[in-house]
Amino acid sequence: MDSSMQPILDKAQVLIEALPYIQRFNRKIMIVKYGGSAMVDEDLKKQVIQDVTLLKLVGFKPIIVHGGGKEISKWVEKNGIKPEFINGLRKTDEATMEIAEMVLNKVNKSLVQNVQALGVNAVGVSGKDGGLLKVEKKLSDGQDIGFVGEITEVNPKILEDLLEKDFLPIVCPIGMDDNFETYNINADDAACAIAKALHAEKLAFLTDIEGVYKDKDDPDTLISEITVDEAKSLIGDGYIGGGMLPKLTNCIDAIEEGVNRVHILDGRIAHCLLLEFFTNKGIGTAIIGNKDTRYYDE
Amino acid sequence: MDSSMQPILDKAQVLIEALPYIQRFNRKIMIVKYGGSAMVDEDLKKQVIQDVTLLKLVGFKPIIVHGGGKEISKWVEKNGIKPEFINGLRKTDEATMEIAEMVLNKVNKSLVQNVQALGVNAVGVSGKDGGLLKVEKKLSDGQDIGFVGEITEVNPKILEDLLEKDFLPIVCPIGMDDNFETYNINADDAACAIAKALHAEKLAFLTDIEGVYKDKDDPDTLISEITVDEAKSLIGDGYIGGGMLPKLTNCIDAIEEGVNRVHILDGRIAHCLLLEFFTNKGIGTAIIGNKDTRYYDE
Amino acid sequence: MDSSMQPILDKAQVLIEALPYIQRFNRKIMIVKYGGSAMVDEDLKKQVIQDVTLLKLVGFKPIIVHGGGKEISKWVEKNGIKPEFINGLRKTDEATMEIAEMVLNKVNKSLVQNVQALGVNAVGVSGKDGGLLKVEKKLSDGQDIGFVGEITEVNPKILEDLLEKDFLPIVCPIGMDDNFETYNINADDAACAIAKALHAEKLAFLTDIEGVYKDKDDPDTLISEITVDEAKSLIGDGYIGGGMLPKLTNCIDAIEEGVNRVHILDGRIAHCLLLEFFTNKGIGTAIIGNKDTRYYDE
Amino acid sequence: MDSSMQPILDKAQVLIEALPYIQRFNRKIMIVKYGGSAMVDEDLKKQVIQDVTLLKLVGFKPIIVHGGGKEISKWVEKNGIKPEFINGLRKTDEATMEIAEMVLNKVNKSLVQNVQALGVNAVGVSGKDGGLLKVEKKLSDGQDIGFVGEITEVNPKILEDLLEKDFLPIVCPIGMDDNFETYNINADDAACAIAKALHAEKLAFLTDIEGVYKDKDDPDTLISEITVDEAKSLIGDGYIGGGMLPKLTNCIDAIEEGVNRVHILDGRIAHCLLLEFFTNKGIGTAIIGNKDTRYYDE
Amino acid sequence: MDSSMQPILDKAQVLIEALPYIQRFNRKIMIVKYGGSAMVDEDLKKQVIQDVTLLKLVGFKPIIVHGGGKEISKWVEKNGIKPEFINGLRKTDEATMEIAEMVLNKVNKSLVQNVQALGVNAVGVSGKDGGLLKVEKKLSDGQDIGFVGEITEVNPKILEDLLEKDFLPIVCPIGMDDNFETYNINADDAACAIAKALHAEKLAFLTDIEGVYKDKDDPDTLISEITVDEAKSLIGDGYIGGGMLPKLTNCIDAIEEGVNRVHILDGRIAHCLLLEFFTNKGIGTAIIGNKDTRYYDE
Amino acid sequence: MDSSMQPILDKAQVLIEALPYIQRFNRKIMIVKYGGSAMVDEDLKKQVIQDVTLLKLVGFKPIIVHGGGKEISKWVEKNGIKPEFINGLRKTDEATMEIAEMVLNKVNKSLVQNVQALGVNAVGVSGKDGGLLKVEKKLSDGQDIGFVGEITEVNPKILEDLLEKDFLPIVCPIGMDDNFETYNINADDAACAIAKALHAEKLAFLTDIEGVYKDKDDPDTLISEITVDEAKSLIGDGYIGGGMLPKLTNCIDAIEEGVNRVHILDGRIAHCLLLEFFTNKGIGTAIIGNKDTRYYDE
Repeated sequence: MDSSMQPILDKAQVLIEALPYIQRFNRKIMIVKYGGSAMVDEDLKKQVIQDVTLLKLVGFKPIIVHGGGKEISKWVEKNGIKPEFINGLRKTDEATMEIAEMVLNKVNKSLVQNVQALGVNAVGVSGKDGGLLKVEKKLSDGQDIGFVGEITEVNPKILEDLLEKDFLPIVCPIGMDDNFETYNINADDAACAIAKALHAEKLAFLTDIEGVYKDKDDPDTLISEITVDEAKSLIGDGYIGGGMLPKLTNCIDAIEEGVNRVHILDGRIAHCLLLEFFTNKGIGTAIIGNKDTRYYDE
Repeated sequence: MDSSMQPILDKAQVLIEALPYIQRFNRKIMIVKYGGSAMVDEDLKKQVIQDVTLLKLVGFKPIIVHGGGKEISKWVEKNGIKPEFINGLRKTDEATMEIAEMVLNKVNKSLVQNVQALGVNAVGVSGKDGGLLKVEKKLSDGQDIGFVGEITEVNPKILEDLLEKDFLPIVCPIGMDDNFETYNINADDAACAIAKALHAEKLAFLTDIEGVYKDKDDPDTLISEITVDEAKSLIGDGYIGGGMLPKLTNCIDAIEEGVNRVHILDGRIAHCLLLEFFTNKGIGTAIIGNKDTRYYDE
Repeated sequence: MDSSMQPILDKAQVLIEALPYIQRFNRKIMIVKYGGSAMVDEDLKKQVIQDVTLLKLVGFKPIIVHGGGKEISKWVEKNGIKPEFINGLRKTDEATMEIAEMVLNKVNKSLVQNVQALGVNAVGVSGKDGGLLKVEKKLSDGQDIGFVGEITEVNPKILEDLLEKDFLPIVCPIGMDDNFETYNINADDAACAIAKALHAEKLAFLTDIEGVYKDKDDPDTLISEITVDEAKSLIGDGYIGGGMLPKLTNCIDAIEEGVNRVHILDGRIAHCLLLEFFTNKGIGTAIIGNKDTRYYDE
Repeated sequence: MDSSMQPILDKAQVLIEALPYIQRFNRKIMIVKYGGSAMVDEDLKKQVIQDVTLLKLVGFKPIIVHGGGKEISKWVEKNGIKPEFINGLRKTDEATMEIAEMVLNKVNKSLVQNVQALGVNAVGVSGKDGGLLKVEKKLSDGQDIGFVGEITEVNPKILEDLLEKDFLPIVCPIGMDDNFETYNINADDAACAIAKALHAEKLAFLTDIEGVYKDKDDPDTLISEITVDEAKSLIGDGYIGGGMLPKLTNCIDAIEEGVNRVHILDGRIAHCLLLEFFTNKGIGTAIIGNKDTRYYDE
Repeated sequence: MDSSMQPILDKAQVLIEALPYIQRFNRKIMIVKYGGSAMVDEDLKKQVIQDVTLLKLVGFKPIIVHGGGKEISKWVEKNGIKPEFINGLRKTDEATMEIAEMVLNKVNKSLVQNVQALGVNAVGVSGKDGGLLKVEKKLSDGQDIGFVGEITEVNPKILEDLLEKDFLPIVCPIGMDDNFETYNINADDAACAIAKALHAEKLAFLTDIEGVYKDKDDPDTLISEITVDEAKSLIGDGYIGGGMLPKLTNCIDAIEEGVNRVHILDGRIAHCLLLEFFTNKGIGTAIIGNKDTRYYDE
Repeated sequence: MDSSMQPILDKAQVLIEALPYIQRFNRKIMIVKYGGSAMVDEDLKKQVIQDVTLLKLVGFKPIIVHGGGKEISKWVEKNGIKPEFINGLRKTDEATMEIAEMVLNKVNKSLVQNVQALGVNAVGVSGKDGGLLKVEKKLSDGQDIGFVGEITEVNPKILEDLLEKDFLPIVCPIGMDDNFETYNINADDAACAIAKALHAEKLAFLTDIEGVYKDKDDPDTLISEITVDEAKSLIGDGYIGGGMLPKLTNCIDAIEEGVNRVHILDGRIAHCLLLEFFTNKGIGTAIIGNKDTRYYDE
């Protein structure tokens, strides 16, 4: 055999290595929370879309849930409103809500566009469509901060129907309350609520960190896999701080309501989704129910 | 029987009168092009939504196609761009297109919201979702006016699937070209193309006029029903002018490709859709294939 | 807008008012016990058929259960047999049974005919078809009164299949015992048993009275809504007498086995079914599970 | 092996012999026109029901079409009307039609009863149900003889649905005209029209004769199999007379419209249906398309 | 009626007698363990195939499970290996296993061939196909006797799918262990495990004995029906010996896991399956749950 | 980013490159004729199974058709028969046929086993199952060479049903004639006939050559893509000889009956199927309808 074949055979080898992963997650639902740098950097964005599209094509059932990121602030300011945050939550008056919804739908359809360009049928929905996300007003330390919603109910029919009809659903986190008023929702919360409602196999958060650290100040203490009980201990012991706390709480919540495995991935790494799901190289931190569902040695 | 019952019995009578109409159009697809005053006046808007929702509930399969109307210009200006029209078509540079898409999606989800509030499941899609509307650049007298698209192909799968799953689809007229670039589309054209692709029973345009006049300068010459051949004569004889010309051309096109009946309705009349579809009072002008499909005497 | 439009707009308003009712009972099964004056008076008969057909067309799933009324006695006498009643039950020897079955089937197919004439597909069945109604001999105070049956089992497959295939089923109350002998059944009992077997949303009795009275001798004490517990009290206190007692017992039984709402309607009022189901004017008396399911103030 | 086994083994042999017939007609539709002596003699009646039920159970799809026979005249007279026939057709005024319909439905439900008693689900319908049989008035030599109908259209949906749901349909020959008036239909005509509409594999007439004779006056000329062309010749040559002429015309019509094989059976022979369909002993006369579809040697 | 008709009428009578049996077992699954003399004698073989094919055609869902019988030994010897048995189990080294599998598949496809020749679609599978039979190594008194497997799991999907698609499945008793190695399985055990996994109505063993005897040494003590409790007593009292012991244990096991009736039939009697299932002559011994499910008097 | 990530990112890249191929052939049927060295060399065998399994998992619908290769001769000789070939076809007497069938089924189930071990459900069938392959005796230059069959009819129901139920079918080339006798079939012919009957997208032959040469004596003239017309010219000009002639004729036949693309692959190259279907490196020779369906430059 001709030596120039080697690199080609190496390619075949990679595909063969993916076989057990494809098999294990065939027709399983995966919720991908898309956000952070991966939404800003054009290369990363392209790679995420490629990854999710490939997951779809090889038989997984991915759903993208995304936020609006820095685009919302940009357009709010452009329209003469000064963004204001209270305890990390955007104060959302009616004018801000109107712009936020426009931006989120713009981002939503732009993702649809990118997936369609790869030849896969995608449909973008917000939590209004088919009554997907029902919310009530969320207070911040008892203070009314406007149209910020807390999910009270998920009606997953539209997502189930789109999956059945072989579409890739893309969801932006907007909901309605009992009076059918519009509310902004935290995208992590939306991803978590949808994963629970659909009994997803996996929920993956694309973030701008490497994962969870045993000691948040020591970069050598990155955890590749952690059980719910261990995560609760870390939180109890005060090791988890900042933005990671609500994210980890969401992870624990998802696992406890039936999601099999939650991943906090470093969205700054190219193709982090493929690497996590198709190779034995764990990226970031996986939260699992108990030690029996472990894949890797720490 | 107690005389106070009379008004109540009259109500029952109205419902009974609707019976043959309900029966005739059961499970038939109706495309409603929503635009004009009916989008601006809050009462009219509420009535249109009520009408379409009722059509859905009694067994019709309506689909709403809407434009953005004056909202687009408002937001374009708000963001410091001067709207510019060439031969009646909006000159659409990239910045304008971005805002137009945001506004159209905002209007789209707001209609979803209104239908959901009446207890019916709606889903808002643009022509990007599932590759619904494919376009190529439209020139205006040979001049490039930016991202204005002409529909070259309709892929109705997403609409068929939503109807099958009992949703009320609401469509905003945005499409993609072969390079998956975003284009604005005339809403009348979009409604007409979708009606043809789905072999709709009916296509109704909500307009700000009473209908088609035999003589556009004589208000006494309103036509309640006209065949395709008669319409072509009127056009040939120069009786049809202004914005009515492209609309009537769309109507003729739809009938010739299999839509059974096209209506130009006066959207300024409350509940014009119900009146047209549930009573023997014809509102506006109906375009039909030939005299055999006539309902009313002129 | 032209003032001559007002009556037409009023029509639209009536349709719009029906919207929440259509929505609430969409695809719900309703059993209509058809009997009394509404079977004799040609106008009332026509109106009942119109009402049920409209209920079918707007998405409900009605089933008509009917008796034979005065027609049976007429034909029995015509054939030289003297009708005889014991404790209100027709003494039914073999010859009487043969004629009763012929008359009931005649009435049954005549109703089919009326519904078909309105453009809706109906199918008439008796309790023999598909083994729908299984009975045992009913004694009257221990006395054998012939082929009068008490329902012991309902096999609803034929009704479920006809509903699935979009037919309007019309049932006449004849059943077979374990030896496949023919028996006559009280139509109220048959309606009640079928409502229970199909977990119907509603069961409505068309009667010749205005409804249930708190005091059967005082016409001012008509009850518009009553809970099962209240009904039991009224019975216990001896306020309910005559033919109303078994009817009310049937109502209580139906509610307790899962029917949501039972109506005793005045079949002498034109379109009483539409008025009850499409307006907020309650006609007659509604029997409900408890106060939480009340619609009207007393 | 014990010699007492022989009769038992013979039984097995009979079942085995039926195998190729069961296989050949599996899931094929067979229309059985039931009438004549087989409706009067209780033993024959029981055997016909057993035969049809067995055909159903082993995988055929039989449909029974029956007349009312002598029962109609009996009840007409009983109710003081003198039966009158014009050219062999019953003069059917309104009163006669009413009684005829009652009797036909009585017979219909009695057949349902007999099939149910054998454990198979049957449903009796008339041509009114689901608009099965549409007719126009039939004149007799230009003379109006009342409500005697000629079939103009068959709407087989109700029969197809009942077959799909595994019921054995039993049809009585009553239809409606364009004004939804009731008409009596010749049962042979009804059976033939239904066979054509359902593209039945077989159509079998139970009659009171042995079959078709080459020479109607010579009992030795019974024909066991005849092609359409041969049948036309016989008719043309005047060999076929009396009641056989319209029957044979029906047979030819059925074959020419796609029924594969029509049988004129002697309904006075016990189990004639089983013998015809499960053994190589042809009973009566088979009408076939051409010589290629012959089974037996003459 | 011509006297020569009598034998033909007798045939009809036999078919009519089969009616209640066909009805009772319609669409019920029956597992037939095919083995013993019935595999060797060409006439018996033909009759078994005819019987099972007829069962299929009249609506039952039979599955054949067969062994390889004397053919395996023949081919093993032919290829120079001396068959060796330890406690009645074939010592199965790799070479023997290879031949045994070849022979079993040959027998399997030969049965397919015979069924196809009767016009019924059959598919032959081994326990490898679709992972049907999973095993672990079976020791004989603690001694390793090679590739002899004990069933640990049945994955019935392939059989359910074949039945749904109207094939007659034929199974040969080969399975794989956790390492996907090939094992030979006792055919009785395979039939029993499959009957349990599919909740079969019946399981019938074709054997070379007349049935179970109360006293194995007294041919007059043949038992026609026995309950599980009675069978356990007989075993406990030492009345059951030899090859009957494991067979009877399998029977008890099947009944206790939901099979309704297990038959030990004398496969040397022609058409024993038809006689058992279509006549009231019980052949061999039936094992039942309790006295309530008895058919025959002892 | 850590430099140790590079090889991992390269892996992701390979998967991403496969994306358009996965997309293009999603749910398309591919027939793989498995034979030659790839059946003998254990490594190659494992790789072929991995490749086909991966094709299945990512959404293709592969079917394997295999021969028995050298195993048949080995077992024939082992059983004392001297293999004999006439014009390249095995002379197949009854004894040889019996052994050939045993060996082919052994190979068949061994492939099932290998696929099951990779976690995918496979079912092995021969052309007997469900009457898949019907043949007539094939003569060799007019000479009877025994049970060698030529395919006259393919009944693909069993394969369609297995694909629908998500199994991977594996077929061995044995068929039956009109008398249900067993025949051996050339595996290339079987693969070709099945590809045509199922309107397969692709048909790939695993061979022991590099592909088709323009000049069979000049290794530098390997053709990577050739149209049917070009292939016919080559044959006409006498450039194609030996075993390639019937293979190329099969290829032309398949293309002309609707298969989109036929591949002659070098089965001695590891993972040749993956390389052909997932990379832009063409392996061997592709036969296509015309130049418009070309992928590669020559």
